[in-house]
Amino acid sequence: MSRRLLIVNGPNLNLLGTREPDVYGRATLADVEALCTERASAHGAEVRFVQSNHEGVLIDAIHAAREDCDGIVVNPGGLTHTSVVLRDALSGVALPVVEVHVSNVHAREEFRHHSYVSGIAKAVIAGAGIAGYGFAIDLLAPAPTA
Amino acid sequence: MSRRLLIVNGPNLNLLGTREPDVYGRATLADVEALCTERASAHGAEVRFVQSNHEGVLIDAIHAAREDCDGIVVNPGGLTHTSVVLRDALSGVALPVVEVHVSNVHAREEFRHHSYVSGIAKAVIAGAGIAGYGFAIDLLAPAPTA
Amino acid sequence: MSRRLLIVNGPNLNLLGTREPDVYGRATLADVEALCTERASAHGAEVRFVQSNHEGVLIDAIHAAREDCDGIVVNPGGLTHTSVVLRDALSGVALPVVEVHVSNVHAREEFRHHSYVSGIAKAVIAGAGIAGYGFAIDLLAPAPTA
Amino acid sequence: MSRRLLIVNGPNLNLLGTREPDVYGRATLADVEALCTERASAHGAEVRFVQSNHEGVLIDAIHAAREDCDGIVVNPGGLTHTSVVLRDALSGVALPVVEVHVSNVHAREEFRHHSYVSGIAKAVIAGAGIAGYGFAIDLLAPAPTA
Amino acid sequence: MSRRLLIVNGPNLNLLGTREPDVYGRATLADVEALCTERASAHGAEVRFVQSNHEGVLIDAIHAAREDCDGIVVNPGGLTHTSVVLRDALSGVALPVVEVHVSNVHAREEFRHHSYVSGIAKAVIAGAGIAGYGFAIDLLAPAPTA
Amino acid sequence: MSRRLLIVNGPNLNLLGTREPDVYGRATLADVEALCTERASAHGAEVRFVQSNHEGVLIDAIHAAREDCDGIVVNPGGLTHTSVVLRDALSGVALPVVEVHVSNVHAREEFRHHSYVSGIAKAVIAGAGIAGYGFAIDLLAPAPTA
Amino acid sequence: MSRRLLIVNGPNLNLLGTREPDVYGRATLADVEALCTERASAHGAEVRFVQSNHEGVLIDAIHAAREDCDGIVVNPGGLTHTSVVLRDALSGVALPVVEVHVSNVHAREEFRHHSYVSGIAKAVIAGAGIAGYGFAIDLLAPAPTA
Amino acid sequence: MSRRLLIVNGPNLNLLGTREPDVYGRATLADVEALCTERASAHGAEVRFVQSNHEGVLIDAIHAAREDCDGIVVNPGGLTHTSVVLRDALSGVALPVVEVHVSNVHAREEFRHHSYVSGIAKAVIAGAGIAGYGFAIDLLAPAPTA
Amino acid sequence: MSRRLLIVNGPNLNLLGTREPDVYGRATLADVEALCTERASAHGAEVRFVQSNHEGVLIDAIHAAREDCDGIVVNPGGLTHTSVVLRDALSGVALPVVEVHVSNVHAREEFRHHSYVSGIAKAVIAGAGIAGYGFAIDLLAPAPTA
Amino acid sequence: MSRRLLIVNGPNLNLLGTREPDVYGRATLADVEALCTERASAHGAEVRFVQSNHEGVLIDAIHAAREDCDGIVVNPGGLTHTSVVLRDALSGVALPVVEVHVSNVHAREEFRHHSYVSGIAKAVIAGAGIAGYGFAIDLLAPAPTA
Amino acid sequence: MSRRLLIVNGPNLNLLGTREPDVYGRATLADVEALCTERASAHGAEVRFVQSNHEGVLIDAIHAAREDCDGIVVNPGGLTHTSVVLRDALSGVALPVVEVHVSNVHAREEFRHHSYVSGIAKAVIAGAGIAGYGFAIDLLAPAPTA
Amino acid sequence: MSRRLLIVNGPNLNLLGTREPDVYGRATLADVEALCTERASAHGAEVRFVQSNHEGVLIDAIHAAREDCDGIVVNPGGLTHTSVVLRDALSGVALPVVEVHVSNVHAREEFRHHSYVSGIAKAVIAGAGIAGYGFAIDLLAPAPTA
Repeated sequence: MSRRLLIVNGPNLNLLGTREPDVYGRATLADVEALCTERASAHGAEVRFVQSNHEGVLIDAIHAAREDCDGIVVNPGGLTHTSVVLRDALSGVALPVVEVHVSNVHAREEFRHHSYVSGIAKAVIAGAGIAGYGFAIDLLAPAPTA
Repeated sequence: MSRRLLIVNGPNLNLLGTREPDVYGRATLADVEALCTERASAHGAEVRFVQSNHEGVLIDAIHAAREDCDGIVVNPGGLTHTSVVLRDALSGVALPVVEVHVSNVHAREEFRHHSYVSGIAKAVIAGAGIAGYGFAIDLLAPAPTA
Repeated sequence: MSRRLLIVNGPNLNLLGTREPDVYGRATLADVEALCTERASAHGAEVRFVQSNHEGVLIDAIHAAREDCDGIVVNPGGLTHTSVVLRDALSGVALPVVEVHVSNVHAREEFRHHSYVSGIAKAVIAGAGIAGYGFAIDLLAPAPTA
Repeated sequence: MSRRLLIVNGPNLNLLGTREPDVYGRATLADVEALCTERASAHGAEVRFVQSNHEGVLIDAIHAAREDCDGIVVNPGGLTHTSVVLRDALSGVALPVVEVHVSNVHAREEFRHHSYVSGIAKAVIAGAGIAGYGFAIDLLAPAPTA
Repeated sequence: MSRRLLIVNGPNLNLLGTREPDVYGRATLADVEALCTERASAHGAEVRFVQSNHEGVLIDAIHAAREDCDGIVVNPGGLTHTSVVLRDALSGVALPVVEVHVSNVHAREEFRHHSYVSGIAKAVIAGAGIAGYGFAIDLLAPAPTA
Repeated sequence: MSRRLLIVNGPNLNLLGTREPDVYGRATLADVEALCTERASAHGAEVRFVQSNHEGVLIDAIHAAREDCDGIVVNPGGLTHTSVVLRDALSGVALPVVEVHVSNVHAREEFRHHSYVSGIAKAVIAGAGIAGYGFAIDLLAPAPTA
Repeated sequence: MSRRLLIVNGPNLNLLGTREPDVYGRATLADVEALCTERASAHGAEVRFVQSNHEGVLIDAIHAAREDCDGIVVNPGGLTHTSVVLRDALSGVALPVVEVHVSNVHAREEFRHHSYVSGIAKAVIAGAGIAGYGFAIDLLAPAPTA
Repeated sequence: MSRRLLIVNGPNLNLLGTREPDVYGRATLADVEALCTERASAHGAEVRFVQSNHEGVLIDAIHAAREDCDGIVVNPGGLTHTSVVLRDALSGVALPVVEVHVSNVHAREEFRHHSYVSGIAKAVIAGAGIAGYGFAIDLLAPAPTA
Repeated sequence: MSRRLLIVNGPNLNLLGTREPDVYGRATLADVEALCTERASAHGAEVRFVQSNHEGVLIDAIHAAREDCDGIVVNPGGLTHTSVVLRDALSGVALPVVEVHVSNVHAREEFRHHSYVSGIAKAVIAGAGIAGYGFAIDLLAPAPTA
Repeated sequence: MSRRLLIVNGPNLNLLGTREPDVYGRATLADVEALCTERASAHGAEVRFVQSNHEGVLIDAIHAAREDCDGIVVNPGGLTHTSVVLRDALSGVALPVVEVHVSNVHAREEFRHHSYVSGIAKAVIAGAGIAGYGFAIDLLAPAPTA
Repeated sequence: MSRRLLIVNGPNLNLLGTREPDVYGRATLADVEALCTERASAHGAEVRFVQSNHEGVLIDAIHAAREDCDGIVVNPGGLTHTSVVLRDALSGVALPVVEVHVSNVHAREEFRHHSYVSGIAKAVIAGAGIAGYGFAIDLLAPAPTA
Repeated sequence: MSRRLLIVNGPNLNLLGTREPDVYGRATLADVEALCTERASAHGAEVRFVQSNHEGVLIDAIHAAREDCDGIVVNPGGLTHTSVVLRDALSGVALPVVEVHVSNVHAREEFRHHSYVSGIAKAVIAGAGIAGYGFAIDLLAPAPTA
């Protein structure tokens, strides 16, 4: 049976491509979703998307993924640096997680250098632009070998 | 007239009993609510419940408690460590608060050692499992002596 | 064409005037809105209000302001000190921002001394009571000179 | 065979009820002991008491508990924040420990927020007044289920 | 009897309008004084000015204000961040103080984020340009209501 | 009735005059006691002495002072920097305390710069040699004026 | 003309696949090189390899890349956290850099959370196993669009 | 020949007895000077006074003391915590220094706990009220024994 | 005349060999004493032992060693990290000190990395098991060469 | 036209050559001035001197230099480490600044390692004795090449 | 078969006995090697030596030890405090390690108190002079008991 | 006999004049060597050069200087901030050291503000461009006066 992945985009990522393009580039969230769909289907996998500016909506979606997903790609936006509850939601559902940031957060303001999610993630990709989502899917979409 | 208590459970506590049972045990949120109802009624008190993964929903519920509650039992989950607004909501309604954590947060990751709520709480109970909710009700349910 | 401003009030500010009046004074949120309307109209400007205990609602409103507002007055309440996503929303829409606090946060608890918003604000006004909103409108309502 | 608990009270707790009653309340150490005896006997358990202003006496008593006790309730007083040797004694005897503080230490001076004992305790109860001892006995007195 | 305010400008503010205009704008100290005089007179109040690059001169002026002033508007310049004696002078005379900064110090170098004055001020206004002095007078010039 | 003072000397002060004389001088503990007796009697006051290397003995003596002393002169030795329980004992008996150090601890190792006792003391005297005990008695021996 | 990339592997990476396989996996450095060659050639690019336990050798190789390479993929191993000179070498040659770590360094010891290289890298990939090298080549191998 | 001492009082100490009397008491600077004169003369010593709100005036006076004084009693006021130049002046003239504070600075705001002067002083007396000046003279007025 | 050494074992070391054997090994305190006796006698030296859970007892024993010992081997147990008075006792008697820890404290909890004793010790040996005592005796037992 | 330089010497530098000669050497301020005059004239430049123990005097002189100087050599003495206003004066006049310290401040007390001036200086020279002034003039006296 | 040990000496240890003899003593590296050879042969073991001022040479030697050594004695010199790659090399080869320092690093500059190696070492010996190497061999040379 | 100096240039300084010219200027390492040779010969001194990207090579050269040099000019490049072994090599050979940086490191990234070398250097010169090497030679080349 084909694998399913949840693609989570946090607050302000709906502005992708329009907000501060010198930092985040010009690709939009729609471009992200198109890229993910295509890349997943190349692996015979499926993707489901959620983007919200509401932390609670993201957590509910992550909880729901427990039922029918095999992995989570998450770009938590600014919640990366402040949200213990997002971390707890991700570790609570016990699925493999890949954390993605469009920009290289490690080279930006000091407060963007710490991530509550990284400690429970399998991999972290930052600064690869929207290609980072594709790399994440490459890591999660193949079924693990026994 | 019988006292009323609000029992607030924060993000991810809907997963109680199913998420990381070696940390949080196997009792569910339904078990918590049953325990609270029974314990409160032993004191002739009533309890009202709110659980949400949305910080705003919790704050709205706390505000509403100002009208008709005599105390608040709160397990803020991961918001314990990050939410000034939850603290402000609790101190804003000026009701006695008992903070409860199912696990002993003081023995977990460093970032779980600080609580924004403890500074305005009457008491803090951590690591007693769901029995902690019962202890909290024992502290808040009796009418204060003159 | 007249300028439009968004007036954003964060969590717990619906309690203004009733919560801890020795800290926040006795003026209510309705008083704030009346003051803003009057002051804006003295400048020939218009104001739109949003208050919410839900961070996501605030962010959605800020995003929407991109379309039709010329500036934002924001009192983020307790989110001031913890919300990177609010900061990102404000900097994402690239409008001038004035940060207002009813009480002098600089003279309160240590954790209220840092603001994620100040770094991207044009001006910060704290401790002026609700008059601070009026000052903010004075700064934002006039059209910038060429 | 009935379970036995050691109730350890650290330095200055002999002054309980007479020292700074607005912080610690008016119940005395004798009241604590009466409460413990009664609560333990409700569980069919026995309690033994030690209070000392001498750290060494406390450690000797904890070592002795290895022979004939099933759990330890400890209010280390000011040693909470400074004593590695008390921690080592407690972890050395490998009995379950519940840490109790009459006042809510988390809401007092900064230096009272860290406890060397919490990291090895099963549960921590602070601010519940002397009722905290009763809650601790409720946690330790029942025989663990297999 | 009309209220009198002391307007204190600290070191380097004599350069205002000529030094680093992209940071401090182009208004001069004379402009500040004109604005203050006009705004105060709109309230029926009087203002007295002192500007000095000598900390001791500022302190002497503040001491003198005890005799015949009702409030102090202070822009301590770089002394904001380093001068305990200025703070002590201001708190020693026990008059209401409003702290003003022409630029938004909260968005500049880290060492400009802490102010020794803010902890004893009634209000703090930063980044409003010289309009900030006018806001300060609006706060201090009206006689307090009984 | 004449005032009584307790003179408390902490661990290692029995070595005074023999240990590291370049730091502590050549006066012995007996010299300290003679000086105190003489100075107190000049005020018509009495002194009682305790020196111990056992923290618990010091605490017991401080507790006992509650019954029949009017003030405490304390040189806690190395406990100055580490003992919360000594602080709690001193604040628990609610007598005026003067803290004395023979050497100027503020000019020695970093870890000697913080004192748990200073926060609850009336006065602190360091580096005056054994004359510091005399100064302390001058402060405590006179009956307070009404 | 085809693009050329330098693939730099720092100290201890010669042990890859044999050292601590639960941390670093079982792929060897030879596997890394094979993967890189293949992936580069899919882009019509060429790769050159250097691995050394000598920091100076790495720096010399980076300097040499200035002449004939278009980008650098670097896994600095433990030098990530300690080497300013490696950072300076990389920024000195002014080529685009992608930083790769086989394991998720963000989830390991605290001292592995800071990287001197990230601040000057275009992208950072951690925890993707040796696939991370492939992703890095995907980012650097295509010629930039004008 | 009789010994001469310089008594240095820093900024704001001209307000002594009138500023915040609950912190500093009701004795005035004139009272301090009378006490010093009397106590010095009991030792056959002479005193010279300087008080200024100008740091430079204090330094000039300290420099001048090199010519004709045998010791310095200094209450640097708020400069205690911020002035390296005052420290350098005192250590530059190489006279014995006793540091005096009327209030117990160790029990006040955190920023008053560090003194730049203590590290080069012979003794430090805090919280003894104006009696502290007398103690300082007792330490400095007697000629040192050979 | 043969050299004499004092062997000091701090709190909880009476449990050696029975407490947490995976950390401390299975050798008992009696084994330590036998090893020390044998090793000392190989050097023609004598050893005296003290173990106590009472800090004061240890200090008294160290003081006494001034009279008739030539060196001290000390395993302060948990007091290593918290006891200034133990440090002061050791430096006060001015004998050469070798600090021994059975386990490698440098590889355990962060709070075990700092030792108050190391700063005044001649040598520090950690993690060598009880053989560390033997090494310490090898260092102290031979008479120093002139 | 010949270039003019202002040579600024801060508090306590009037004592140069007489204060702590092992730290500062035996050359006096007059020697410094002679050296500067000679070195400047070798470049065809002129120098003007100011030394004061009054921070305000230094700032006034720096402001005045705006009118007729081409560069500033500054040895701020102890103000180096504490004076934001001196930094602001220097950056306010927008002349090139070379910071000089007679002693190697980087090898002295910790609090002398940070300089508020270095961040805005062109060059920093420490520990070269009074020769440092000559080097500074070598850097500033030649007219910049176009 | 006899056990083999690698004895690693880091940068500057070739100067042993000639550099700063009051810190490091007068024994030379040749003395160290003679001592090690003798002590090892007393255990029927063999030793191999490497000393280098090149970190990379040390790492290569450690890697090579994987093939034919049973343990490593390492004195990393100044690399102790800065080299993650040395730590990684040692943990990568998975041999038991004993860390030796000739001087008592714990009593020297602050920056010498932290060791990257201690966390992965079996034992740490500091301040025992070159005898420390002998002790290390005593710990590693005997074959482990089954 | 003429004095000889070793001129040490650390990693990446071979790129001088070509790497980041806005930071480091356009003079090359060859220019530095020409300048040094000329300046030394003006003093009748000789210079020897070493530049390496290998820390070990630098240390070996410094060790060798013990034999035949009278002083060392060192620009450690990025090793300034990280290399304890370089510091140890320099202090081990006990020659006077002048530290030079082409750019003003004190005004660059925070991590460039600390130098391991400064604490053992005679003088530190930063930001003077390559002229700094000349100043260093001026300090070291003259024979010290007796």
